[in-house]
Amino acid sequence: MRILGIDPGYATIGYGVVDYDKNRFKTVGFGAITTAAGVPFPKRIKDIYNDMITVIERFKPDEMSVEKLYFNTNTTTAIDVAQARGVIVLAAENSGIPVFEYTPLQVKQSITGYGRAEKRQVMEMVKSFLNLQKVPKPDDTADALALAVCHGHYSGSAYSKLWSENK
Amino acid sequence: MRILGIDPGYATIGYGVVDYDKNRFKTVGFGAITTAAGVPFPKRIKDIYNDMITVIERFKPDEMSVEKLYFNTNTTTAIDVAQARGVIVLAAENSGIPVFEYTPLQVKQSITGYGRAEKRQVMEMVKSFLNLQKVPKPDDTADALALAVCHGHYSGSAYSKLWSENK
Repeated sequence: MRILGIDPGYATIGYGVVDYDKNRFKTVGFGAITTAAGVPFPKRIKDIYNDMITVIERFKPDEMSVEKLYFNTNTTTAIDVAQARGVIVLAAENSGIPVFEYTPLQVKQSITGYGRAEKRQVMEMVKSFLNLQKVPKPDDTADALALAVCHGHYSGSAYSKLWSENK
Repeated sequence: MRILGIDPGYATIGYGVVDYDKNRFKTVGFGAITTAAGVPFPKRIKDIYNDMITVIERFKPDEMSVEKLYFNTNTTTAIDVAQARGVIVLAAENSGIPVFEYTPLQVKQSITGYGRAEKRQVMEMVKSFLNLQKVPKPDDTADALALAVCHGHYSGSAYSKLWSENK
């Protein structure tokens, strides 16, 4: 199964693609979609959608794993991340790719075994699972790979059905 | 100028279309896009995008006026409204329609002259501006018409450039 992990955002959207088979991972590709600050937001939204379609067409994932959002503060940034996440999900749905979502806690637990792991520990484990020479940059890309690994671990379990059950 | 007002949401999205010329308004149409609670969220997002395209193709607006979001609480609902707003904005951008956004305060001020007006007063003024027999239902539809009227009032002024200036 090929999994596309996505760390949602509107300035930088990390993506990571892994093949998962019988508890083994193979890294297929990773990178980041970026939009420039000076561009009007509707145009950035359009660019994100189109770039997501390009990534999907290039890597042909079977499933998508995207971080679930929680907002603790009432910031414009948080609202804009959610708006961008909407078009990211639309790109998957229009491509016929099932979307799964995980909380940061679930990602940590699935990768390190406990939810209070530090970010650095998570990244080191991702590097190890994927046989990478070093932790990918930017962080958004490493986070996206962590989401892909998390979905591999949870696939077939009760956790992997969260998205559709909650709605 | 034909204005499409949008009250964003994911269960109910109000829309209202008005023609505005020399301080006079003419109501062209209004209604609501709805999605059912049992449907998975990615499918609802896709339906909202497709229904928005249908509304745009039917009414051929020149500009879109959409409410600016503020979240005071960390709720799943608020995040999902923002995600839906993302695909609403994408539908406008993909159709070449400029998007303008206004806060609830700006809508009240533009319609009643002051920002502390009660919702009911705003609705009565919208009814009056648009020569309607009664305030449209659901509230989302009336709110969408208020956004369209607001943009008519602000068009050409400094306020109408808010979206692109802020990003």
